[in-house]
Amino acid sequence: MSLRTSIAGVAALAAQALAVELTTFGFPDCANGPLKDNLVCDSSASPGDRAAALVNELTLEEKFNNTGNTSPGVPRLGIPAYQWWNEALHGVAFTLPGKPMTDSGNFSYATSFPQPILMGAAFDDQLIYDVASVISTEARAFSNGGRSGLDYWTPNINPYKDPRWGRGQETPGEDPFHLASYVQHLIHGLEGNQDDPYKKIVATCKHFTGYDLENWNGNFRYQFDAKISMQDMVEYYMPPFQACAREAKVGAFMCSYNAVNGVPTCADPWLLQTVLREHWGWDQEDQWVVSDCDAIQNVYLPHEWGATREEAVADSLKAGTDLNCGTYYQRYLPGAYDQGLINDTDINRALTRTFASLVKLGYFDAAEDQPYRQIGWSDVNTQHAQDLALKAAQEGIVLLKNDGLLPLSLDGVSSIALIGSWANATEQMQGNYYGIPPYLHSPLYAAQQLGVTVNYAEGASQGNPTTDDWGAEYEAAEKSDVIIVVGGIDNDVESEELDRVAIAWSGPQLDMITQLATYGKPVIVVQMGAGQLDSTPLVANANVSALLWAGYPGQDGGVALFDVITGAVAPAGRLPVTQYPARFTREVPMTDMALRPSDTSAGRTYKWYNGTAVFPFGFGLHYTNFSAEVTSGPDGKSFAIADLVSSCGNATSKLDLCPFTSLAVAVTNTGAVDSDYVALAFLTGAFGPLPRPKSSLVAYDRLHGIAAGSSQTAALNLTLGSLARVDENGDKVLYPGDYAVVIDVPDQPLASVNFTLTGDDAGTVIESWPRLPTEGREAAGVENVPADYYEGGYGSVQGDQEVL
Amino acid sequence: MSLRTSIAGVAALAAQALAVELTTFGFPDCANGPLKDNLVCDSSASPGDRAAALVNELTLEEKFNNTGNTSPGVPRLGIPAYQWWNEALHGVAFTLPGKPMTDSGNFSYATSFPQPILMGAAFDDQLIYDVASVISTEARAFSNGGRSGLDYWTPNINPYKDPRWGRGQETPGEDPFHLASYVQHLIHGLEGNQDDPYKKIVATCKHFTGYDLENWNGNFRYQFDAKISMQDMVEYYMPPFQACAREAKVGAFMCSYNAVNGVPTCADPWLLQTVLREHWGWDQEDQWVVSDCDAIQNVYLPHEWGATREEAVADSLKAGTDLNCGTYYQRYLPGAYDQGLINDTDINRALTRTFASLVKLGYFDAAEDQPYRQIGWSDVNTQHAQDLALKAAQEGIVLLKNDGLLPLSLDGVSSIALIGSWANATEQMQGNYYGIPPYLHSPLYAAQQLGVTVNYAEGASQGNPTTDDWGAEYEAAEKSDVIIVVGGIDNDVESEELDRVAIAWSGPQLDMITQLATYGKPVIVVQMGAGQLDSTPLVANANVSALLWAGYPGQDGGVALFDVITGAVAPAGRLPVTQYPARFTREVPMTDMALRPSDTSAGRTYKWYNGTAVFPFGFGLHYTNFSAEVTSGPDGKSFAIADLVSSCGNATSKLDLCPFTSLAVAVTNTGAVDSDYVALAFLTGAFGPLPRPKSSLVAYDRLHGIAAGSSQTAALNLTLGSLARVDENGDKVLYPGDYAVVIDVPDQPLASVNFTLTGDDAGTVIESWPRLPTEGREAAGVENVPADYYEGGYGSVQGDQEVL
Repeated sequence: MSLRTSIAGVAALAAQALAVELTTFGFPDCANGPLKDNLVCDSSASPGDRAAALVNELTLEEKFNNTGNTSPGVPRLGIPAYQWWNEALHGVAFTLPGKPMTDSGNFSYATSFPQPILMGAAFDDQLIYDVASVISTEARAFSNGGRSGLDYWTPNINPYKDPRWGRGQETPGEDPFHLASYVQHLIHGLEGNQDDPYKKIVATCKHFTGYDLENWNGNFRYQFDAKISMQDMVEYYMPPFQACAREAKVGAFMCSYNAVNGVPTCADPWLLQTVLREHWGWDQEDQWVVSDCDAIQNVYLPHEWGATREEAVADSLKAGTDLNCGTYYQRYLPGAYDQGLINDTDINRALTRTFASLVKLGYFDAAEDQPYRQIGWSDVNTQHAQDLALKAAQEGIVLLKNDGLLPLSLDGVSSIALIGSWANATEQMQGNYYGIPPYLHSPLYAAQQLGVTVNYAEGASQGNPTTDDWGAEYEAAEKSDVIIVVGGIDNDVESEELDRVAIAWSGPQLDMITQLATYGKPVIVVQMGAGQLDSTPLVANANVSALLWAGYPGQDGGVALFDVITGAVAPAGRLPVTQYPARFTREVPMTDMALRPSDTSAGRTYKWYNGTAVFPFGFGLHYTNFSAEVTSGPDGKSFAIADLVSSCGNATSKLDLCPFTSLAVAVTNTGAVDSDYVALAFLTGAFGPLPRPKSSLVAYDRLHGIAAGSSQTAALNLTLGSLARVDENGDKVLYPGDYAVVIDVPDQPLASVNFTLTGDDAGTVIESWPRLPTEGREAAGVENVPADYYEGGYGSVQGDQEVL
Repeated sequence: MSLRTSIAGVAALAAQALAVELTTFGFPDCANGPLKDNLVCDSSASPGDRAAALVNELTLEEKFNNTGNTSPGVPRLGIPAYQWWNEALHGVAFTLPGKPMTDSGNFSYATSFPQPILMGAAFDDQLIYDVASVISTEARAFSNGGRSGLDYWTPNINPYKDPRWGRGQETPGEDPFHLASYVQHLIHGLEGNQDDPYKKIVATCKHFTGYDLENWNGNFRYQFDAKISMQDMVEYYMPPFQACAREAKVGAFMCSYNAVNGVPTCADPWLLQTVLREHWGWDQEDQWVVSDCDAIQNVYLPHEWGATREEAVADSLKAGTDLNCGTYYQRYLPGAYDQGLINDTDINRALTRTFASLVKLGYFDAAEDQPYRQIGWSDVNTQHAQDLALKAAQEGIVLLKNDGLLPLSLDGVSSIALIGSWANATEQMQGNYYGIPPYLHSPLYAAQQLGVTVNYAEGASQGNPTTDDWGAEYEAAEKSDVIIVVGGIDNDVESEELDRVAIAWSGPQLDMITQLATYGKPVIVVQMGAGQLDSTPLVANANVSALLWAGYPGQDGGVALFDVITGAVAPAGRLPVTQYPARFTREVPMTDMALRPSDTSAGRTYKWYNGTAVFPFGFGLHYTNFSAEVTSGPDGKSFAIADLVSSCGNATSKLDLCPFTSLAVAVTNTGAVDSDYVALAFLTGAFGPLPRPKSSLVAYDRLHGIAAGSSQTAALNLTLGSLARVDENGDKVLYPGDYAVVIDVPDQPLASVNFTLTGDDAGTVIESWPRLPTEGREAAGVENVPADYYEGGYGSVQGDQEVL
């Protein structure tokens, strides 16, 4: 066939690809199909060799056709159409173009866990593994039922740096160590053991990298150029992705919409090749990079990176973006090939990776030989899954204020007023990227199980602050013994493409709550949603007895919430983010990627924010009291850096992972209520250049069910990387100085240990970071479109420079 | 009854008020009802006396009940429930809680005109009067049918100062003279003649004042404090409202959500009493002020103006806000009364005004005596109304670029590709605040009437830029002779509560258009929506033959558009706003109310913007050419200011309205196509202090149907106010100097006249502006809520001060 595909031909081609209706998914027939004698069907060969053999059979047109998320397959070879776009952020959610669930009966629902932000608050890595295992089992069930694919575009593991970010809910929080630890356990649960012959499913770490802004004042994610210093890059933005690539060896990465330091990430060979594949050794033959959806189109416009559409796709493919969510590859790679901008090697490499991934998933192998292919509908929504969804929500809920009212005794309580925009929540409880759950137990449902009268009213919300709708909540309060407000925010104000612009409680919602607090009755306030609201007015209001944060708690969220309120479960969650004062939105431009404070920024995260948090990262109250003692650790010791490094083997490329010490911390429940306790270890001290972070989380361990009066021991493992600082080149460095590890939030420590490192004042590099190339990072511009046409809005700050 | 209403009692009261189901509207029975002997039923008495007599009969509880938009009436006196909240921005639209239209049959639709922004572009005051007359006739029909009230909360007459404003579509444009002229004709059409015994309907000039921001980066309209200099106030923000109050004597005003110079407008006696009622003489007994919806609640929180809810309602009532859209008055005025914060005089004054308004509308008088009560369903959607809706859209459409392709000849054209997110528009064509129209003729509908094949595809939009949805538009283009893209923006990106954050064409939409422009076929682009998009890339693209702007064109918008494209009607609309370059959003913070440029702002409107507009205010091409000659005017003359003032009678309070001169401008159509022409008169010159505006619109006159080769004469009337500058106190001043009046946009003038004023260099004040009081303008604050809790976001600029 001719490669001189006309524009109309390309259009028809794309239309054909899109016309594939993936109502059912199938598998190639390697036993009897056209490929049965091709190496791809030889399960004894390597995935890369098998995939290469298949790619070798394809025409160029067939290759281009299969570079988009909606891939038509290769009918003449018995390769079915395949939809690469499947989502399972906190449970099997959807498969383009809709949910994989049927209307009723088998495959009509899947377990819906809390949003990651609430699961992050549990600080319980084993929980995350368990949840991910259930999700991947259910994903396999849907695949085996012909309802979905085998790769999933989860997790979103960008650190939740700014409380305004609309997608912060999809992440476990703001701390890079926490995220790195969380994501390893998550991927283990999703993909299975690394040395198993088959991957359970393929996970996709996204969005690589520097993506944590939807649209701040005209800085759309599609066009935003994140100016990130190498210091911040390594210290903050990269640890979760490094963990994905180097430790978890995840199957896929997704490049992001934004540019980083001038280059759209999907077209950045430094990022996708030098850092990801070379520096981190993410070079297995079945590992691939997909663009975020239409991010390749965005490489052309609005990024204006390629002067033509063909340059944009060629630059992206050659940089290492193997698959395009969207149709730009399908439409313009043929022209790029004709123009000599890409060659056979480029296109074959991409396709070999994606097909090798399918090989690794057992796609081409006999079902009977694969345990994952035996998973079915009966493995979905098991009692274990249901229990785990409830447990995940219980573990994450954070108690922020309590004057002693909680746990709420129902003695003498005959009626509860349950008020607020979340009281009767349905899909709200799932946040975003959700499927159809077996049930959604709202706070109202849960309250109605308590055996008291429940007087429900919706009242004011952030979204509909209309007094015309007020009245019923005051009647409900008037006739009830206890007032519980379940409000806050939801995806009306924080969601994909929608960043928050304020972090205060809205005037009407605050008005309603404070009015309810004048009734002389106990008032409990629960803030829902991922983004923290500045609760200063509620903390200061003596008539508000208790304040909790419960995120997006998933299918059993209402039950979890009332379990905590009534004391059936004791709260032990910790804030996975800082609760900033409302003025934060005036103090920090969202476009400023710098973590450290500057003339135009108050700084970010608990490590660097120079204001006073309303509640700090890691904060969380209990129904009991705890004491802690470090029973084993380096207290008072001194270590020569040279010895530490040599004992790890100087030559390793993973010196940062080399163990330094393990702290044993005996935690005693000195109160009267059995309770979990999250042991947090923060590093502080005087070492390395100024400015220094206030503290850094270096380990955590959740202890379960510590009985009143008894103790358990937490194991907190520190590595050389725990002690390292990052310099301006992005290198990780050990410095001599005085170190301390504090147990629990540094403002309220339960215990601490001190030790010293000695060595060269200049520091010792334990990981050298790849340098940015000095050339090839200039945008080409697009004819007729002014170079500044797509810059952001007023007050944008990029790097140290304010754009005015 | 006791006035010591408990909180529960108030709640029940409000609930009762809200429970009024206004499915039908009725009138009191003054012939046989309980009030038949009350003065309110005596049609020979004045509206104020009649209303006072009624109010005198009411209990306090009945009074409080009737201070909200949903008023229960007074059942024991035969006063029906009444809904004050009716909308008719560009046709009868809705009546709380829904549309007044029935599902089918009588009263199932009303004429839907273009949004004001497109009608503003017509620069045709007679058209506006005609449209308003149809709207008020149809409103009376709905009232007589028991489907709606008699007062309407229209027009929105805040100047459209910033292209980001989500509600700019509701206004006629950015120029205060234009708006003042427009709104007088509008109100005349809505309310009828001022000296008629009955008002046709009551119009409501909103939002008073300084309201032109929904939510810019956390500066919510509910909490924003607009810092406005007295110079800008009088020069820019007030002229439309002065025209409403002083010239049109409109029946109602609406105070706005925002504060101005520290005081929430609904609680500002300087604004509502000193300026509105005293300075402008808006003091008829039937004129009332309503709060924007829940704006009284906002006076408490987030404005924190009153320390208590009772203070907030008392301050608002006493400032002169007579009616509360919302329930705050109903709920908290009783408590304010109990606390002595308001007295009987305060509450009686408010109720007397609103009841007097109903009297003036004939509410209490016999139907048979009132012509307006005879209007019925047969008066809705008449042929005249339909023709006028079409004409209004035709007159407003603006031609921005034309390489000669337009008017499009259909000779040899067998097929048109009609592409874009607006091509198959339905409710989009109505913008916002719309009712149910008799029909909605989309561009697709209109194209299908042309007798050619129409290949339609939706393609990319600002809202859904997903390449997965692309493909069909390229197929459509491939098989068509001409490509017409009807795209741009709509209420997905500009609407109430949603300001725009960018004014560039989105990358995907621009990508699609420029790709279509490579097909070697004629391409016409139509930008829809109110906010201009920076069309630089389309202007520069030689393959885009023509560019039009068509706003929100209403029920027959598609037909109007194709009438213009094909030349059935020649375009003569003019841009009622400046088309700024995309960088404007970086150059000007939306919160900066100053018109003049400063260190933090590039300035606003064609008068002050210090950058280069893509298309200037007033721009519009034709299918023909025009020449103009001033045949009568003050060219070369000199005038002594003292003489001008004395000839007007020094003592008048309306010196600014005193005629100065009338220019007669002979306009000749020198081309080959019959066409309307809008004669615009801009004042320029060297007079008064620096800085001076680049130019100022002082008169306009639309000439209709100037035949090719023939002439018509425009009458452009200038007043002393046309020549005045405004000083820093807000006083209007005449200065000696050199003046010029330029016909057509100053960059491309068709004619001009020059004249001189002589007199005292210090200037002569012709209108003295009320001074702000120095006390009583401090917020009280609310307990437990930090004073800065509700300030705006990063980059906010108020006055000359950037808030960081």
